[in-house]
Amino acid sequence: MAPESQALSDAPLPAQDNLSIARQARLWPIEEIAHRLGVPGDTVEPYGRGVAKLDLAALNALERRPRGRYVVVSAITPTPLGEGKTTTAIGLVQGLQQLGHGATVAIRQPSLGPTLGLKGGAAGGGLSQVVPMERINLHLTGDIHAVTAAHNLLAAMIDNHLHQRRGVALDPRTVRWLRVLDLNDRALRHIVTGLGGRGDGVTRQSGFEITAASEVMAVLALADSLADLRRRLGRMVVGETHDGEPVTADDIGAAGAMTALLKEAIKPNLLQTLEHAPALIHAGPFGNIAHGNSSILADRFGIHGSDYLVTEAGFGADMGAERFFNIKCRSSGLKPDTAVLVVTVRALKYHSGRHDVRPGQPLPAAMQTESPQDVQAGASNLIKQIDNIRAHGITPVVAINAFPTDHPSEHAIIRDIAAAAGVRAAVSTHVRDGGAGAVELADAVAEAADQGGDFRFLYPDALPLADKIERIATRIYGADGIELAPQARRQLEAFQAQGHGHLPVCIAKSHLSLSADPALLGAPSGWVLPVREVRLSAGAGFVYALCGDIRTMPGLSAEPAASRIDIDDDGEIVGLF
Amino acid sequence: MAPESQALSDAPLPAQDNLSIARQARLWPIEEIAHRLGVPGDTVEPYGRGVAKLDLAALNALERRPRGRYVVVSAITPTPLGEGKTTTAIGLVQGLQQLGHGATVAIRQPSLGPTLGLKGGAAGGGLSQVVPMERINLHLTGDIHAVTAAHNLLAAMIDNHLHQRRGVALDPRTVRWLRVLDLNDRALRHIVTGLGGRGDGVTRQSGFEITAASEVMAVLALADSLADLRRRLGRMVVGETHDGEPVTADDIGAAGAMTALLKEAIKPNLLQTLEHAPALIHAGPFGNIAHGNSSILADRFGIHGSDYLVTEAGFGADMGAERFFNIKCRSSGLKPDTAVLVVTVRALKYHSGRHDVRPGQPLPAAMQTESPQDVQAGASNLIKQIDNIRAHGITPVVAINAFPTDHPSEHAIIRDIAAAAGVRAAVSTHVRDGGAGAVELADAVAEAADQGGDFRFLYPDALPLADKIERIATRIYGADGIELAPQARRQLEAFQAQGHGHLPVCIAKSHLSLSADPALLGAPSGWVLPVREVRLSAGAGFVYALCGDIRTMPGLSAEPAASRIDIDDDGEIVGLF
Repeated sequence: MAPESQALSDAPLPAQDNLSIARQARLWPIEEIAHRLGVPGDTVEPYGRGVAKLDLAALNALERRPRGRYVVVSAITPTPLGEGKTTTAIGLVQGLQQLGHGATVAIRQPSLGPTLGLKGGAAGGGLSQVVPMERINLHLTGDIHAVTAAHNLLAAMIDNHLHQRRGVALDPRTVRWLRVLDLNDRALRHIVTGLGGRGDGVTRQSGFEITAASEVMAVLALADSLADLRRRLGRMVVGETHDGEPVTADDIGAAGAMTALLKEAIKPNLLQTLEHAPALIHAGPFGNIAHGNSSILADRFGIHGSDYLVTEAGFGADMGAERFFNIKCRSSGLKPDTAVLVVTVRALKYHSGRHDVRPGQPLPAAMQTESPQDVQAGASNLIKQIDNIRAHGITPVVAINAFPTDHPSEHAIIRDIAAAAGVRAAVSTHVRDGGAGAVELADAVAEAADQGGDFRFLYPDALPLADKIERIATRIYGADGIELAPQARRQLEAFQAQGHGHLPVCIAKSHLSLSADPALLGAPSGWVLPVREVRLSAGAGFVYALCGDIRTMPGLSAEPAASRIDIDDDGEIVGLF
Repeated sequence: MAPESQALSDAPLPAQDNLSIARQARLWPIEEIAHRLGVPGDTVEPYGRGVAKLDLAALNALERRPRGRYVVVSAITPTPLGEGKTTTAIGLVQGLQQLGHGATVAIRQPSLGPTLGLKGGAAGGGLSQVVPMERINLHLTGDIHAVTAAHNLLAAMIDNHLHQRRGVALDPRTVRWLRVLDLNDRALRHIVTGLGGRGDGVTRQSGFEITAASEVMAVLALADSLADLRRRLGRMVVGETHDGEPVTADDIGAAGAMTALLKEAIKPNLLQTLEHAPALIHAGPFGNIAHGNSSILADRFGIHGSDYLVTEAGFGADMGAERFFNIKCRSSGLKPDTAVLVVTVRALKYHSGRHDVRPGQPLPAAMQTESPQDVQAGASNLIKQIDNIRAHGITPVVAINAFPTDHPSEHAIIRDIAAAAGVRAAVSTHVRDGGAGAVELADAVAEAADQGGDFRFLYPDALPLADKIERIATRIYGADGIELAPQARRQLEAFQAQGHGHLPVCIAKSHLSLSADPALLGAPSGWVLPVREVRLSAGAGFVYALCGDIRTMPGLSAEPAASRIDIDDDGEIVGLF
C-alpha cells in the first residue's frame, strides 16, 4: 500500500480527469461481461457499444443457481460533497475480482438533472469507474425518459379526465399527481396549468418534480416482474373523489399504457467497470421521498450470477441502508450478508463541528492539515451508523476511502474506532489504484460476508404506521421521540383505516444529519423528529413522512455544469466529469 | 393483381391486426440489413433486437460510392384519416426489391403523443410495415426523448438566467422558447411558471408544445454533422434583450450541453421492413410549424447505400413535398429524381365535397358504394398536386393506394386523370400483398426515376421573405395573393433587416386543404392567404408563417388510445395498432 499521505483523490487526478480515463478504457464486448454473469447470450440485448439490457427471461435459469453473498454499501452521514460510496462499491468488486472471486456491482442510474446542474457525472471516479461513462451520465438506455413519459401520461390522462368529465368523479382539488422532468428547473416547482380557453383544460395549481422523485421510479425499482409492475402502477393513488374515496391510476385507465411504456425499462442495464467486472445500473429513485436504492431485479441478476453482489444504497446508513433493509429487502425477500460503511477522514473532521464544507467550493485548508484529534471528535457519527447497521442483525465493515490529503495517523484513529466497536476496517485506495487498492477491503468484506449475519427487520409489518416512524426515529436517528403535526396524525389514521397500516415507512429528512436539521452534526441527542405530513405511495408500497423542508425539484446554480459541457473538434464530449 | 373490388384496407385486416402481423415477423439480424445498405459492421451499433444506430463515420466511405435514385413520397390533400403515404413508401421499396433493386425507405419517427392519443401506431400497415413495431411506436432508441431533454435544458437555463440575473440582459417578456413534452396534454398549452417564493424563479406566462414542434427537432432533421448540429443549436434565438437584440442559445450557454445530449440521437436508426428492406427512421419534425421531413443524414445513408432511396414527406404535396424541395433539399444539396403522389378513392370522393369524413369514425356508407362520378368530382386536387410537383421540375408517379371498398371503375378514373396530366399511374395493393402488390408501382417509379427530372427550387434565396410566401401561396396553394397582418409585416421587415432574408419559408396552415381553411376541398380558387404572424427558426434555417389557428400541443380525446393499451399475460403489448 502506498503511503496514505500521498494517496489519492476523489477529485480529478492531476493529469487525468474521470472522463479522460473512461474514454481510454478498452471495453470488453458486453456479451463477454454477460457471460461472466452467467446470462445466456440470447437474453442479452446490446444497446449501443458496451451497454446491454438483460431480458427478464434469463432470471428463471439463473435463479436455479446457488446465490452469492449480498453486500450493501452505505456510509456515515456524508458532507455535502459525498464520501465516495459509488467509487467504493466499484472498487470493492474490482478488489474481490483481484482475489479471484466473481463480483458484480449494482448502482442507481444517475439523474440528468444534477449531472447537468451541479456535480457532473456519477459513475465512480479515477480507476474505479463504470464505463462507457458518457452513456451512463446522459441517457443510458432511456429508462429515466420512459419513467418520465409514463408518469406524465398519467398526468395528462388525469387532466383529460377532469376536462372530459367522464367516469369516476375525481375532485380536482385533491389531485396529488404532479408532472416530472429529469432536469433541475426551479421555475416548474409551482405552476398553474389549464389556462387559455374552454378547450384548454381545467385550471389548477400544480407543479413538476424531478423524475427520480416519481412514484413510477420507486415502483420500477421494487417490481419483481412485468406483471408486478402492472399491478403496482394500477394501484397508485392520484387523488380522491368528492366523497373522499381514493382514485387510482387504474381508475383513470392509464396503468396499461404506462406498463407498455416501461416494457424495456424494466430490463436491467449491464455495463462493466474499468476492470471488466459486471456492473448493473438500473432505476434511480430519489433518496428522500423514495427509498434511494437501485432495482431488486438488478440485484437478483447479480446475486445469482456472482459470488458477491455489491449494491449501493443512497446517502448515509440512517437513510439508504435503513430503507434497503426495511423497504427493499422486505419487498424482495432477499437477505443481506454484510454491509460496508464508507468513511472518510474529511467527513469525520466535518462531524467534529470544527469545519465548514460547502458543495462546489474547495475544502477549507484547515481540514487538510494532520489532525487525528478532529477525526476522533467526529467519531460519534461513525459509531452510531455502525450501530444502525447492527440494529438489523448485520455486522458492517468500515471502508476508509483514502484521499491524498489524509495522514496515516488519521486512518489509524478510524481503525481504532472500528476496533473499539468490534468491526473490521480497511483502507482503500481504489480511486487511484483500482481493484489493487481495494484488496484489503475486499478481503475484509469477503470474510464478513462469509461469516454472515442474522438479518432482521427493524419493525414488523403489524406495527402501526406511527409506531414505525417512532421506531426509526428513536432507534436509528437517536431522537427522543416524534412530534406528529395534526395533519400528519389525521393522514396516518386514514392510511391505517384504508388498510395500508402494514406498509413500511420511508422518512424524508435531511441526509446531512442523523436528525432532520442539517446543522446538527455527529450523533445529536436531545431532539424530537417533527413530522409535517405523511403521504402514501400505494404502488411502491410504502408511506412516506415529510420531516422538514424537502425539495423535490432542484434548481440550477449561477454557473450550471451544463454551461461547461460541449463537444470538441473530434465530436467527443468535454466538461462532463 | 387481385381484383381491386376485393382489395385491402388500411384499417386492421379481418383476422390480423398490424401488431399481430408485426409480432409474427421473423426479423433478420440487423447487421445483415446494414450489410445490404453497405454499412460496415463496425459502424453499426445494435440498440435492442432488430434496431441499430449507424455511426456517422460510415458516411465517409459510403459517399464515395455512386448515389442511387432519390424518390420522395407525397400525397394529394388527405382526408383526416390519412391516405397511406407511409404504407406506400414501405410497399414501394418492397416492390423495388421484388424487381431486383436495392431499395431503402426513410420515414419520420412517430411521436408518442398521437400514438397514445388518437391513432395508435405509425409504422405502416398490413404487409407493408417496419418492424419491430412496438419499438418504433414507443421509444425506439430515445431520440425524441433526447430532443425533449435538450429543449427543456435550454428552457431551464433561460429561466435560471432570468433568476440569477447574470450575463446578457434577456427581457423576460420576449422569451419565445417554450417547453416541450412528447405527449398530448392540453392542460400544458397555457401555464404560468415561477410561482411560489423568491427562490422559485421568475413568474412568467409560458406553455408546452409537443416535442415534434421543437426547433431542436427541426435542427436534428437538417443537420449534416455533429459540428453542424452544434452550430445550429447555438444560433437558435430564444428572445431579445431590453434593447431588442436577439438572444441565442449560445448566449445562454446551453448549446454545448444540448449537443452532448443529442450525440447519440444524431445517428440514424436502422430497422427493416417485413420483407427485410433497410428502413431508416430518424427525426420527426412537426409537419406544420416545421418542415415535416425525416433527416438529411438518414437520406444520405440510404441514397449512397441503395439503388433507390424512398423518403416520405409529411401531409400533402403542397405541404411536405414543397418543404422537401425548398427547405430540405436546399439544405442538403441533394436533388430528387422523381416523386410519388399517393391518392385514394376515398380522398378523391372526399374532395368532391359530397361526403363527410371524421377521424376516429367509420367512413360513411355512401362513400363505399361504387361512384366513379364522385372520384372524378374530386380530381381537381390531384391535378393541382401533380402540378405542384412539376413546379419543381420533377414528374411524379400517381400511386393508387387500393382499399377493399374500391371498385375497378374508380381506379380507372384515376388512371385517366393521371394520363390526361401526362404522368404515370399504378394501383398498389401493398398493405394486403406486401412488395408483390407494389410491383406495378415500383416499375413505374423506377422508370420515372431513371428518366429523372430537372429539379429546381420554387424561389431563389435572394427573393425577399414576403415574396417567398406569396410565391408559395399563389404558385402552390392556388391563392390569389397573401394578406400580411401588420404584426407579420413588421416581423418580416425585422428578419430582412437582421440578415435572415435569404432563408426559405415554411408556411403553417391546415393540411386538410390547399388553402388555409380546412373546409375548402378540391382546388379552391378566389381566396387570399392570411398571414397572422411570422417567426424565425434561426437554427433550423427557415422562417415560418402562421396562417390560421395552428395547434402545437394536441389534446386527448374522451377515449384516448392509451386507455386501450396494456400488456397481456405473456407480457406482450396489446391495443397498439
